[in-house]
Amino acid sequence: MAKTAISPTREEDYPEWYQQVIRAADLAEVSPVRGCMVIKPWGWSIWENVQKVLDGMFKATGHENAYFPLFIPMSFLEKEAEHVDGFAKECAVVTHHRLEPGKDGKLVPAGPLEEPLIVRPTSETIIGSMYAKWVQSYRDLPILINQWANVVRWELRTRLFLRTTEFLWQEGHTAHATEEEAREETSKMLEVYADFAENFMAMPVIKGEKTAGERFPGAVQTLSIEAMMQDRKALQAGTSHFLGQNFAKAQEIKFQDQHGKECFAWTTSWGVSTRLIGALIMTHSDDDGLIIPPKLAPKHIVLLPIYRNDEERTAVLAYVKSLKVELESQKYSGESIRVMIDDRDLRGGEKNWQHVKKGVPLRAEIGPKDIAKNGVFLARRDTGEKVGVGREDLVATIADRLDAIQKNLFDRALAYREEHTRNVDSLDDLIAWFTPKNTAEDKAEIHGGFAMCHLVDEPAVDELLKKHRLTVRCIPLAGAVDEGTCIVTGKPVTKRVVVAKSY
Amino acid sequence: MAKTAISPTREEDYPEWYQQVIRAADLAEVSPVRGCMVIKPWGWSIWENVQKVLDGMFKATGHENAYFPLFIPMSFLEKEAEHVDGFAKECAVVTHHRLEPGKDGKLVPAGPLEEPLIVRPTSETIIGSMYAKWVQSYRDLPILINQWANVVRWELRTRLFLRTTEFLWQEGHTAHATEEEAREETSKMLEVYADFAENFMAMPVIKGEKTAGERFPGAVQTLSIEAMMQDRKALQAGTSHFLGQNFAKAQEIKFQDQHGKECFAWTTSWGVSTRLIGALIMTHSDDDGLIIPPKLAPKHIVLLPIYRNDEERTAVLAYVKSLKVELESQKYSGESIRVMIDDRDLRGGEKNWQHVKKGVPLRAEIGPKDIAKNGVFLARRDTGEKVGVGREDLVATIADRLDAIQKNLFDRALAYREEHTRNVDSLDDLIAWFTPKNTAEDKAEIHGGFAMCHLVDEPAVDELLKKHRLTVRCIPLAGAVDEGTCIVTGKPVTKRVVVAKSY
Repeated sequence: MAKTAISPTREEDYPEWYQQVIRAADLAEVSPVRGCMVIKPWGWSIWENVQKVLDGMFKATGHENAYFPLFIPMSFLEKEAEHVDGFAKECAVVTHHRLEPGKDGKLVPAGPLEEPLIVRPTSETIIGSMYAKWVQSYRDLPILINQWANVVRWELRTRLFLRTTEFLWQEGHTAHATEEEAREETSKMLEVYADFAENFMAMPVIKGEKTAGERFPGAVQTLSIEAMMQDRKALQAGTSHFLGQNFAKAQEIKFQDQHGKECFAWTTSWGVSTRLIGALIMTHSDDDGLIIPPKLAPKHIVLLPIYRNDEERTAVLAYVKSLKVELESQKYSGESIRVMIDDRDLRGGEKNWQHVKKGVPLRAEIGPKDIAKNGVFLARRDTGEKVGVGREDLVATIADRLDAIQKNLFDRALAYREEHTRNVDSLDDLIAWFTPKNTAEDKAEIHGGFAMCHLVDEPAVDELLKKHRLTVRCIPLAGAVDEGTCIVTGKPVTKRVVVAKSY
Repeated sequence: MAKTAISPTREEDYPEWYQQVIRAADLAEVSPVRGCMVIKPWGWSIWENVQKVLDGMFKATGHENAYFPLFIPMSFLEKEAEHVDGFAKECAVVTHHRLEPGKDGKLVPAGPLEEPLIVRPTSETIIGSMYAKWVQSYRDLPILINQWANVVRWELRTRLFLRTTEFLWQEGHTAHATEEEAREETSKMLEVYADFAENFMAMPVIKGEKTAGERFPGAVQTLSIEAMMQDRKALQAGTSHFLGQNFAKAQEIKFQDQHGKECFAWTTSWGVSTRLIGALIMTHSDDDGLIIPPKLAPKHIVLLPIYRNDEERTAVLAYVKSLKVELESQKYSGESIRVMIDDRDLRGGEKNWQHVKKGVPLRAEIGPKDIAKNGVFLARRDTGEKVGVGREDLVATIADRLDAIQKNLFDRALAYREEHTRNVDSLDDLIAWFTPKNTAEDKAEIHGGFAMCHLVDEPAVDELLKKHRLTVRCIPLAGAVDEGTCIVTGKPVTKRVVVAKSY
């Protein structure tokens, strides 16, 4: 077997492979603060690109950004009963506002607050309290606001990017005069997320509705996009909630309609988080490390000068620098090509492997022989393909080459999902498919995938699936009616749902 | 007297004028959470522009962004004695990680933490703990990292943007192998802040060093930029700290130098915050509301269509929309011109005043008569000047017009500062200059300004000044030696310092 840069491989130990990819690409680390991570510069650059693209999409769909407080008074959370039930168990609570030396001289919390403050786990309640002030008349609606923020949910088992106590996200919060308009907004933002996932992350997703048991606490309807990772588990990559009038009633977001009648507003909320970075890693990366879709890559291409002495160095560096300028004059996906030169004093092999592990889409080695031929030796991260390319050719085709990588990553991920998605028509088959065989071929417990089943949306079904660590990921929005009977209850169902293990 | 949009005027009641400008421009408002503000979309857009420009400057000077945890274990803060003294009195403390129903059914904090967590007031300690892991050899230095984040300092008296319990900022944290390099970094970042303040905010600043009593807790040297507001008070707009080896020793940021010797690193930190928005408001705005320097304005120009009937509306809107496209094709300060059309169904006068109060640099009214002349009626926010301009002329000169506004704002602010800065050579004169006269001309207690005095850097001086609510704002970096004797102690001093009331 070929030596790989990441050990263990995906097949040997998928969860550990994931941690090692993050380490090898220098994306993030655990911090000394329980459950909180440090996002390092390379990881942060990917998040910056995610933010930039999504922010543009939000603005293009009429939304504005604003910023609301980090803290939420405890009483605010209590106003919506389901909401507080959903979040009370995982709240960081601020109870004091200073530190004082205690009896032994060590600091202790002092200045107790009259009312404890919650570090926001999500901001429906605090934002809703402002909307209640801002909305008087139908003329004040809709309110279409997004915020980029950190949130905290106290998690017992954490994993970098996928589940951390503090994470970064955007949360859109909108208020509308009619149910129809709020439902339209909910769907529109799911489409934005799906567009972003597929066309920027190169990650195919299934758009669907969550079952009652999987809804956001306090929502009437939760839509989500679900993606398949390379261990065939599902990852919920974004959610858009139709909140009905639940939060508007809890917080008195009321307005006078055209006829002077007082009505409650209809609200929505929607969010994606730094979890997307985890999804990106697990969708595309391989046993040599990270692979980043070009549209979100901090650098599109790294130029690696090769030389043996000072004379060669001068010639090679001059060539490389002018090539960088030429490449940067080209555009890909509306942005200038992002080029880096790596002239660190490191062995060529080691340097090259660092960029492989960091997932830079293209690497170009350039030495005196390449310059003699007026070209570079180009390696493609996704396929491993290596080829000599003339300089003019490279400049002229760089955007197309990046696009080919972007497309290949999507196609590959889609093929993988399709290969591991099947219709399952009995409970026994479902359980069997998700049961580890513990054979040599299956030692990483890679098994199952997306099972398309007929299931009714009832708590009994959720409970039974839970015993096998399965959930209904969603009821897909697309697809024709496909009548059948629930494989648990025998009741008639008109559409198959997606069942999977999940993150 | 002319009617003004803001009441009271600056002269009548400066602090209240400030609040009313914020309200009239819809920049921000107080939230139901003590001391925390809500930054509304117009205010947020200014902050987005601040972030974008500064972020580019940080990257151009070799810095990368990363992200560190919101929480800091209490024990981390204690490691640097001065640091904890400086922040212990204003820390929000997280002591529990969930909520449970108490005896009366109401929620109470539960799940006490073994060690309380502080919501970061600044991140030297948590970031330093990571640097201690990352730095082994001189080859790992320098580390040049910035983070955009929210921080919390429990304040008893808060004011929108200027002093809020939660605020947003950037904090740069760097580690270096030598003292010289760390001192250079400290100065370099002060220059970046001064460049930003003067060339983007159009706000003249004095670059200087803080006296011992005004240093950042734990710093060896604190540099700052100080600006004069229109009530003649000083506002510290950015600080850059040389931390020596204090934090490196407290946190064991150690490395092996070229000779294999173990050394402590030299660190710096530097930051600016949403306070800059407060400075921007108070530097430029007038009794009609906000004035935004064009380089940071969310919109450069608003187009106001004027019509009396549907027929006129069709013609005017078509004209306005095509003009918008033409204007957007022009660049100012490296960015496309930011144009908005306001076609809301509102009285023209009311609409126009809204944009005056929001500080849009240029307003263009366009009705059938203007179209007949193929032009617009253009108003400049900073001077109030109104003039008919031909369409082609407007498109060709828009960038120059914006630049003239940008320049005028700077010149005006500089002239104001110069007018209210004077050498003061005795303590009596100093006190007299800052004592309100309570005359009709001085009822808003606008008095004093920047007093340039000979003062030694000793605690006795700080204490005496404090009695008169004065501080040494800084020891200016620029300027020649100007020998004299301290107006408090009579000791010899080689340079005048800036004394002022301050925010």
